[in-house]
Amino acid sequence: MSASYDLNALFTPNVVAVIGASAKPGKIGNTVVQNLIDAGYEGKIIPVNPKSTEILGLPVTHNISELPQGLDLAVLTIPSKFVLGSMEELVAIGVKSAIIITAGFKEVGGEGAEMEKQIKELCEKNNVALVGPNCLGLINMNHNVNVTFAPGQPLLGRIACFSQSGALFTSILDWALGEKVGFSKFISLGNEAVLNESHVLDYLADDPDTNVVMGYMENSIDGQKFMEKAKAVTRKKPVVVVKSGVSSAGAKAAASHTGSIAGADNAYSAAFKQTGIIRAESMSEFFDLAQAFSKAPLPLGPNLAIITNAGGPGIMATDACEKTVLQMAQPSPETIEKLRTTLPDYASFRNPMDIGGDAAAPIYKAAVKEMVEDKVYDAALVILTPTSTAFKDLEEITQGLIDLIKTSKKPIFPCFMGKERISVAEQMFRDADIPFFTFPEPAINSIETMYKYVEFKNSEEQHYITPERDLDKAREVIAEAVKNGDKEIVEYKAQEILKAYDMPVLASELATSADEAAAAAEKIGFPVVLKIASEQISHKSDVGGVKVGLADADAVRATYTEVTERAAKMRPDAEISGCLIQEMVPKGCKELIIGFKRDAQFGPLLMFGLGGIYVEILKDISFRLAPLSKEDAHNIIKEIKTYKLLAGVRGEKSINFEALEDVLLKVSQLAVDFPELTEADFNPLMINSERAFAADVRLALE
Amino acid sequence: MSASYDLNALFTPNVVAVIGASAKPGKIGNTVVQNLIDAGYEGKIIPVNPKSTEILGLPVTHNISELPQGLDLAVLTIPSKFVLGSMEELVAIGVKSAIIITAGFKEVGGEGAEMEKQIKELCEKNNVALVGPNCLGLINMNHNVNVTFAPGQPLLGRIACFSQSGALFTSILDWALGEKVGFSKFISLGNEAVLNESHVLDYLADDPDTNVVMGYMENSIDGQKFMEKAKAVTRKKPVVVVKSGVSSAGAKAAASHTGSIAGADNAYSAAFKQTGIIRAESMSEFFDLAQAFSKAPLPLGPNLAIITNAGGPGIMATDACEKTVLQMAQPSPETIEKLRTTLPDYASFRNPMDIGGDAAAPIYKAAVKEMVEDKVYDAALVILTPTSTAFKDLEEITQGLIDLIKTSKKPIFPCFMGKERISVAEQMFRDADIPFFTFPEPAINSIETMYKYVEFKNSEEQHYITPERDLDKAREVIAEAVKNGDKEIVEYKAQEILKAYDMPVLASELATSADEAAAAAEKIGFPVVLKIASEQISHKSDVGGVKVGLADADAVRATYTEVTERAAKMRPDAEISGCLIQEMVPKGCKELIIGFKRDAQFGPLLMFGLGGIYVEILKDISFRLAPLSKEDAHNIIKEIKTYKLLAGVRGEKSINFEALEDVLLKVSQLAVDFPELTEADFNPLMINSERAFAADVRLALE
Repeated sequence: MSASYDLNALFTPNVVAVIGASAKPGKIGNTVVQNLIDAGYEGKIIPVNPKSTEILGLPVTHNISELPQGLDLAVLTIPSKFVLGSMEELVAIGVKSAIIITAGFKEVGGEGAEMEKQIKELCEKNNVALVGPNCLGLINMNHNVNVTFAPGQPLLGRIACFSQSGALFTSILDWALGEKVGFSKFISLGNEAVLNESHVLDYLADDPDTNVVMGYMENSIDGQKFMEKAKAVTRKKPVVVVKSGVSSAGAKAAASHTGSIAGADNAYSAAFKQTGIIRAESMSEFFDLAQAFSKAPLPLGPNLAIITNAGGPGIMATDACEKTVLQMAQPSPETIEKLRTTLPDYASFRNPMDIGGDAAAPIYKAAVKEMVEDKVYDAALVILTPTSTAFKDLEEITQGLIDLIKTSKKPIFPCFMGKERISVAEQMFRDADIPFFTFPEPAINSIETMYKYVEFKNSEEQHYITPERDLDKAREVIAEAVKNGDKEIVEYKAQEILKAYDMPVLASELATSADEAAAAAEKIGFPVVLKIASEQISHKSDVGGVKVGLADADAVRATYTEVTERAAKMRPDAEISGCLIQEMVPKGCKELIIGFKRDAQFGPLLMFGLGGIYVEILKDISFRLAPLSKEDAHNIIKEIKTYKLLAGVRGEKSINFEALEDVLLKVSQLAVDFPELTEADFNPLMINSERAFAADVRLALE
Repeated sequence: MSASYDLNALFTPNVVAVIGASAKPGKIGNTVVQNLIDAGYEGKIIPVNPKSTEILGLPVTHNISELPQGLDLAVLTIPSKFVLGSMEELVAIGVKSAIIITAGFKEVGGEGAEMEKQIKELCEKNNVALVGPNCLGLINMNHNVNVTFAPGQPLLGRIACFSQSGALFTSILDWALGEKVGFSKFISLGNEAVLNESHVLDYLADDPDTNVVMGYMENSIDGQKFMEKAKAVTRKKPVVVVKSGVSSAGAKAAASHTGSIAGADNAYSAAFKQTGIIRAESMSEFFDLAQAFSKAPLPLGPNLAIITNAGGPGIMATDACEKTVLQMAQPSPETIEKLRTTLPDYASFRNPMDIGGDAAAPIYKAAVKEMVEDKVYDAALVILTPTSTAFKDLEEITQGLIDLIKTSKKPIFPCFMGKERISVAEQMFRDADIPFFTFPEPAINSIETMYKYVEFKNSEEQHYITPERDLDKAREVIAEAVKNGDKEIVEYKAQEILKAYDMPVLASELATSADEAAAAAEKIGFPVVLKIASEQISHKSDVGGVKVGLADADAVRATYTEVTERAAKMRPDAEISGCLIQEMVPKGCKELIIGFKRDAQFGPLLMFGLGGIYVEILKDISFRLAPLSKEDAHNIIKEIKTYKLLAGVRGEKSINFEALEDVLLKVSQLAVDFPELTEADFNPLMINSERAFAADVRLALE
């Protein structure tokens, strides 16, 4: 879809027309033209205004129809009621791209939403790459384009940033100015009538001027498209996203256990994990990662060196490190040897390296240099507290560090603890385009995130397989249930679907009489379970419809009669098909729950966890979006906290993980094959060291 | 102990002598005198130096012996080798307090440590209130005292701060200067030869100039004293502590399960909880809380109002709020009614209240005013993103907020997201002595901590009871084991101790022959458990020494013979006392673990958790220091994540919590009564809805 939109016309236009340009300072139509001039734009700017003749020194065009054919970019700042008409005129002259800054569309509902719908259709039909409406505009620092009404110009850098919130856009810009963080592109997406974050990601994947993509998201209109595009970028450059609305879920009435647990935010988290997007958990983490990724080289391994002039912060940094995947290896004997000649005796020749409160510039420089050059380390954190010596030598220490950082291929993060007097150093680091931290924890977390990104980049591409299954057979069962208007596929029919997917089930047979039940039990082998079979009876236990441990044919016969008679009495409305005779679950099985729920944006979201209290009380569950890769099937299992219970504790055998992964891949395939299935629970799925058994299954329809 | 030290002489001296004062700028002995002058000290300053005649305009005294008798405070900056001698001379003139800034004592070991020991003894004997050695000094802003060598003067405020690290002291001072946070007292504790954080807490409890106590700690020499003093302060004013060394535990070889899990940091955490100290988890949280507690009123309830000019940050703040105990109630109908007349239609008349990206100063002021005045709310967070309107009105919005904040009795925290252009507002808030935040999360966490402190202050004082027990009987068993040089009290003897404490045990009897075993079993009632009884056999299962479910007298007889014979064969070294015949654990019991370990600083640390995988895999455990109050016994149970399992899930009955609290209080008492017991495990302690049973017990001796 995005292939048909000309995003080059949008990001690197040769001609820009501003529809609603104004000579009056303070007006959006004035600010946009001014920003474009201030950015040093070298193409042609055409202010469009029916009344003026000159705006900010530029000759004005009165009518859109007078604009050049095949115009690259039109920016609209006119009142909302005129926008649709202007867009029609712009389409008539063959405009390639447009930005509607004006608000008052979908976000206000009613007539506004209707206008937006028509604009969307118009642009889609005519391949107009439209940004907005209701946005702040767009900046391309690499082409001197700034068509926003945000005050001030950002700095040039290598971060491309997109935002689904115009207000956040201004915050990010202002923060970046203060921290001297620069951008390549900056785009405010607004209502996303046509272009959304997927198109932007697609464009940025191969943008040579962008090293890092940062984004603020509130929602994704087309989750699967987003995932496809994101996957293509993350292998090339890091994508860091902060998403609001974690708690917004408010689970609606759900047909399944999975449905009641899985919220929209779980789908986003899964999408980020499965595409390699780095999710920042807060705005402060977002900003920390922005400076870390854009200003420092990546750590190629997990070993962190900490150099400090104060013991306490060194220990605090060690504490923080222990919560991450980073490791604090000890320096090599050669490094210690070298430092013994330079550092005072009371320095601690280990990691964290405490060089003492009176460490002056030469000591700082020597310690950091030797530690960073030690092959043991992949990254370094340099802590400074403003002791009287450190304060006296502050500029020299800082300059020494800057020199080292600028020539090192490893990330070296300064963490200078204080505010007033250390501000000189902060400014020097900012001017030298080096990340700066006040506290150890965010610095260490940033290094960890960078290292995890390196691991992701080095990991193999995912493997997708399509399990063999009898699609026709499954389709038959589902089609019949849909035809009957069923809300749920009754268990004994769901069993047919599982068989079609060659899923491990307990041996079972539908018996329609007491004698058939006894015969089925003989075939399966005693003891057996007997369950009432009726499309109308979903909660079998409510009618005493489940009996376990039936030890012989007589017991089966008697129970069949008892159960069917009771069910008929208690539920005269129900049509009773008979009873399902089922194999008993072997001893020593673990109880798992696997399920899926169809997310509006991302499609089927799979859930996995240990059954019973682990899901209900401990909420120890993990999620992935279907289709699952082999790696996803592996990771969704490993992610739960109680994973160790599956691997076997106290001398128990491990469960058969291969069998479990196989079930997960088949459930994933089922979810992908049949969009009619809205929710599913395999609860419990029993598993031991040999095999798995879907002991109960629930499939819900729309 | 601290009653004998004159801390008034230390904090509010009328005469200060600086031993080692120097005329040479840059020397510590010069900086200290200069700082004291710069602080505006109104008492008498006496520089002591054998050679100079005038230092910084002050006449110099050549010898300590010439100083006035009963000198209030001596500050020593002379080389370490002269310190002990000078202290002796100071004692001779009856000095009341001293600060040894000089380093080179306990922290370097050897001779330095020996000198410190002698100084400590000298001061303790002569009641000299000594701070240090190896410290930065002390500041009392309320008496214009600054005898530190830290550069610059802090601002006057209502925070008293102590630090066990001199380097961190400089960081905190520098941060505070930058953030315009002021202090009442500031003390660097150094090696704590005589005075430590307990003395300081004791002094600050009733200091009328101090509203908040902040501290940086690395360790507490006398944990129980610290707890006693802390408890006296926290009910009067908040005490916020950041402690490094969370990961430093490195559990040593431990005799018990509890011993292997409980680290030193668990003891600190328990001590903080039990005394009401607020533990900051990072330096950034420490600083956030410093400004929050010192500059804002406390929230009297949990209801937070959020007002924002951008939807996304409003949602992010809501997300953050959901992780806390704070609640986001909706505004009252009256508030909505009033705001309908002022706010634009597109504002969201709910909480979070989104007043729109083009909200100007009057809108901001009206929205915040009405929300804060609504009785529903106890606190407010005001978010601003620098949209063009907000930026244009920035100073007016800020001033409006300052006016509201200054007259409100509720905490109202501004959170202005950005850096460069919002710095004007930041400066205005700082100048007005109002806490300022850049991100919603830390602001919300600070409000939560303040609210929790209010809850703590409103909570009842703890109740301590001493359970009845037969101390003599228990003492007899323990004394015998100590006399024998046992490392552990063998189970059948430990049972005697449990009986002495009236702890719920399984009925058990020691049998010394097969017939006695059968008779004991008849008395207890079948089925029974049989366990080998030998002081030398600690791991009974290793010799097949535990048999359960013995159903009749014959089985008991046969098993007795079998078990004792096998044990004798496998452990010829062991003296076999017979077998313990024990009641079977009733069905439906939950398995718990209770234990304690003696912490070097804090004494007995109790551990509680659900047994088996919950402790081993999920690490779901909680800690408290003995003696436990009734409230502690209640809270240690409620704190574990699996608490709900005890309260009963899926229709199960709740366990008998009263019985469990009773056991906890008795274990606590046992730990307090017998310092000889170094570690203990009640593992498992079985419990059902009726009663508890200590099914196995392990008591370790030194």
